[in-house]
Amino acid sequence: MNLRGVGVSPGVGHGPSFVLTVSVPEPPEGATYTGEAEQEQERAMAALRQVAGELEARGNRAGGEAEEILKAQALMAEDPGLVVKVRSLIDRGLAAPRAVFEAFNKYRDVLAGSGGYLGERAADLDDIRDRVIALLYGQAMPGLPAAPEQPYVLVARDLAPADTALLSKDDVVAFVTEEGGPTSHTAIMARAMGVPAVVACQGATGIPPGVEVMVDGTSGDVRVRPPESDVADAVGAASARLAALASWTGPGVTADGHPVPLLANIGGPAELVAAVAAGAEGIGLYRTEFLFLGRAEPPSAEEQRRAYQAALDAFPEGKVVVRTLDGGADKPLAFLPTAAEPNPALGERGLRRFRRSPAVMDVQLGALAALASDRLSVMAPMVATCEEAAWFARECGEKGLMDVGVMIEIPSAALRAADVLARVDFVSVGTNDLSQYAFAADRQLGAVSALHDPWQPGLLDLVALVGDAAAQAGKPCGVCGESAADAALACVLVGLGASTLSMAPSALAAVRAGLAAHTLEQCRTAARVARAQSGADEARAAARVHLPGLAGLGL
Amino acid sequence: MNLRGVGVSPGVGHGPSFVLTVSVPEPPEGATYTGEAEQEQERAMAALRQVAGELEARGNRAGGEAEEILKAQALMAEDPGLVVKVRSLIDRGLAAPRAVFEAFNKYRDVLAGSGGYLGERAADLDDIRDRVIALLYGQAMPGLPAAPEQPYVLVARDLAPADTALLSKDDVVAFVTEEGGPTSHTAIMARAMGVPAVVACQGATGIPPGVEVMVDGTSGDVRVRPPESDVADAVGAASARLAALASWTGPGVTADGHPVPLLANIGGPAELVAAVAAGAEGIGLYRTEFLFLGRAEPPSAEEQRRAYQAALDAFPEGKVVVRTLDGGADKPLAFLPTAAEPNPALGERGLRRFRRSPAVMDVQLGALAALASDRLSVMAPMVATCEEAAWFARECGEKGLMDVGVMIEIPSAALRAADVLARVDFVSVGTNDLSQYAFAADRQLGAVSALHDPWQPGLLDLVALVGDAAAQAGKPCGVCGESAADAALACVLVGLGASTLSMAPSALAAVRAGLAAHTLEQCRTAARVARAQSGADEARAAARVHLPGLAGLGL
Repeated sequence: MNLRGVGVSPGVGHGPSFVLTVSVPEPPEGATYTGEAEQEQERAMAALRQVAGELEARGNRAGGEAEEILKAQALMAEDPGLVVKVRSLIDRGLAAPRAVFEAFNKYRDVLAGSGGYLGERAADLDDIRDRVIALLYGQAMPGLPAAPEQPYVLVARDLAPADTALLSKDDVVAFVTEEGGPTSHTAIMARAMGVPAVVACQGATGIPPGVEVMVDGTSGDVRVRPPESDVADAVGAASARLAALASWTGPGVTADGHPVPLLANIGGPAELVAAVAAGAEGIGLYRTEFLFLGRAEPPSAEEQRRAYQAALDAFPEGKVVVRTLDGGADKPLAFLPTAAEPNPALGERGLRRFRRSPAVMDVQLGALAALASDRLSVMAPMVATCEEAAWFARECGEKGLMDVGVMIEIPSAALRAADVLARVDFVSVGTNDLSQYAFAADRQLGAVSALHDPWQPGLLDLVALVGDAAAQAGKPCGVCGESAADAALACVLVGLGASTLSMAPSALAAVRAGLAAHTLEQCRTAARVARAQSGADEARAAARVHLPGLAGLGL
Repeated sequence: MNLRGVGVSPGVGHGPSFVLTVSVPEPPEGATYTGEAEQEQERAMAALRQVAGELEARGNRAGGEAEEILKAQALMAEDPGLVVKVRSLIDRGLAAPRAVFEAFNKYRDVLAGSGGYLGERAADLDDIRDRVIALLYGQAMPGLPAAPEQPYVLVARDLAPADTALLSKDDVVAFVTEEGGPTSHTAIMARAMGVPAVVACQGATGIPPGVEVMVDGTSGDVRVRPPESDVADAVGAASARLAALASWTGPGVTADGHPVPLLANIGGPAELVAAVAAGAEGIGLYRTEFLFLGRAEPPSAEEQRRAYQAALDAFPEGKVVVRTLDGGADKPLAFLPTAAEPNPALGERGLRRFRRSPAVMDVQLGALAALASDRLSVMAPMVATCEEAAWFARECGEKGLMDVGVMIEIPSAALRAADVLARVDFVSVGTNDLSQYAFAADRQLGAVSALHDPWQPGLLDLVALVGDAAAQAGKPCGVCGESAADAALACVLVGLGASTLSMAPSALAAVRAGLAAHTLEQCRTAARVARAQSGADEARAAARVHLPGLAGLGL
């Protein structure tokens, strides 16, 4: 039995399948309780509080992206509207589990039909509902084996953030899900963990539990009960590839000696260890949102200072580029609520929100300035115009920050990169959002995923505009999107003018090896021929012709 | 007393104020009924049906944009979730008006908090609720005088589509609202009617009813009880300006004889009369959505054919450019439902949706092909890549359509205009959506409205890329966004390479006069100096220096 999905985290993993099934029963219709309504209500509230607390605690332990997501879920579990509804259903005589069931389902149905961002959160609500009901029934939580006998391939319809947050690379050798896309939770977490993953794999949950499964996170192939010799071949090839990559160490550099510092994207101090272990030369993107999400009040200056200092300490000689608070859209902030937005990705997020919150801004910029390190750089997210860039540079300058830049993740900022660069010290291209806006295609939406193939020539054009403007201005141009994590594309980005590349630590080895196998001129040629194509597939194929070293590295 | 808001529809209007107040009382809490629940439910259902029917009928009479909006409201009035809720509240003993009140409010609160597109529709729900309750109480509908004694200035907190749909230019001399922005319903309808309007005018509803008010839809000034001499001066200046503009007639052309056909944007056959009256040379953008919205089934080929033929008949020698169905996002289609999208503007809309609906597409392209007119052009909305353009051209070619183009309203399509033009016969730049995506700023959201100033140099850059590519390819490049309706910007667009301009009919006179007062070289110089600036205000000011004829025309 062979299945096929979309490979979203490279490598080969194999082991017995563990098929995640959630089996919380529906509480019987009209179920009642004995005793006082108040007691039953307290029971329900306690369960909601406990689930919220557990989600929050898992978030704290997990850190980074997972922390943000889990803390947002924790807030949902104690949503005032839901709490009132549960109470009133119990007042009308329903038992706590049934009241929870009905209240969550009603809320879920409205959300699912609302067409907004919250519509996408309906599945999270189901997950919370099941956890609360399981608790009220005294059942084991739906979830994963606490201490598996051997590492397994985790198979599921989709994985909730709560499921994946505490997974260890020691226990899980691969992920396979029926739902999801390249930017789904599963994909992002798998890449951060460095575990192979295949998503959008129809029929996956039909895999019998416990049978041997081999997952190729590059090709998207999922093989059930593969012949032992095939497993040996695939694993052998994968380890040979790993060994080949591992032989390339040291700073990022092309074959002809052009240095390209290779940096790590992190979401918090917990991810520093992996970044150092993977040989990152510094931090190219420190997403500071993790410090703020799911909190009623923003963190103090001292707490922030410590978090940023940890990054400087982890890389005693490396650069650390901190991005200021990027709230709004899919990263709601409890202490800075916004009105409902019809399209949050096009709304008051990033710098737009930061600018309207002088108190929050003062504390963050102040904490950064207090570090007084010449290895520290600060940049703003979601800059659309040079007016915004100038404003940010002025604010940072007044605080005494010395190296100030902006993200280029909105097409207008790329088109006007020369104007922007005249006002800041450096830029960093965020290819994920840049492609979302350039192609008007939501990153969260599977149906339009073909449009944000990072090889789309239109996206390469925008990066080239920024690279040329940076060269002209004699200022650095980093790239810190998912596209920097593809070894072939990394060469092309260098050819387009990227002076540093920043990525998930798990991608560093392949990018380092790919770069070292090619000269700067080869990178430039690859970039030129890619842009001469009219489609993403053609651009990828044309570039690879001029990057002959990739095949030998198994890349 | 002087107030100030944002002028969104130019000109000066004055007359007695009519302040729209909605005064449907809240049905008393716990109100009950006598008789059978079933009868009371039938009473509520009948009122819901009647309001839905009236909204739909108003929509049919109004046509165009108003029709779309009213039909969507009519669907909300009979939303199955609401109907079930009203019925169950009556089952529990509540009188029909109170049941309607509670059901709508509950739904409204959830929507208002949902953060999605529907959140923005909460005000529409209130309007429907009040209409249904008024009907159940036997009250007059909230609304406007049926036959006013003299034309009035309509003042309101905000105007519901149902309020404005049947307004006539004979009755209303100006609009003033406290809410709203440049792309609100009020603004769009005022421009379509050619009536001056000021929105976002704080304190407007404090204007006493019946007092003289003068509204300047250009400056945003609203004067209460102005001196008679000031009114005479302002009206005199406005009519002098109108007379000056009216002296320019005939086809669009620059001072040195470079022809620029001036076309009209329409939403349906009802708007053809205004387009002909304003001297349009044809239709540059026929938004066909109006035929499809609010209907359970798409219109037949014959119905569509008649609607398109009417446009060809209205302009016996002019071109008619029909845009294929642009559904999705803020134009939901009952017969092509989509899953909830977190950001509908970045979702499956326009061509993306059309492509997934072969049956709907076959009928529309077939109806267009049956017209067999060489004055007919067909274009697709929301094209991001040349692959999509090639696909559309192929589909149209197979049906026998001869002149096939695409809208350029996504940055990637502008960046790759040469690739796109290699696959189609013409392009038409949609500046509204193009600026929404290029600046990642929602058109519906007041908070980010400064970013879609059509003079943003980044937007001009994208138009220039398209204009240059079209000149290179020797193919036509139209512009059909709001920006073509600004006489100064229209000159700049021509300087950037626009070969035709299409706009609301009310803007044609000013654009015609503005173009005729300048040479093509002046337009090109204005475009060049505008792009040399780094901000929108600077670009506007710099361009006007090179367009000296505008001041003399009062533009």
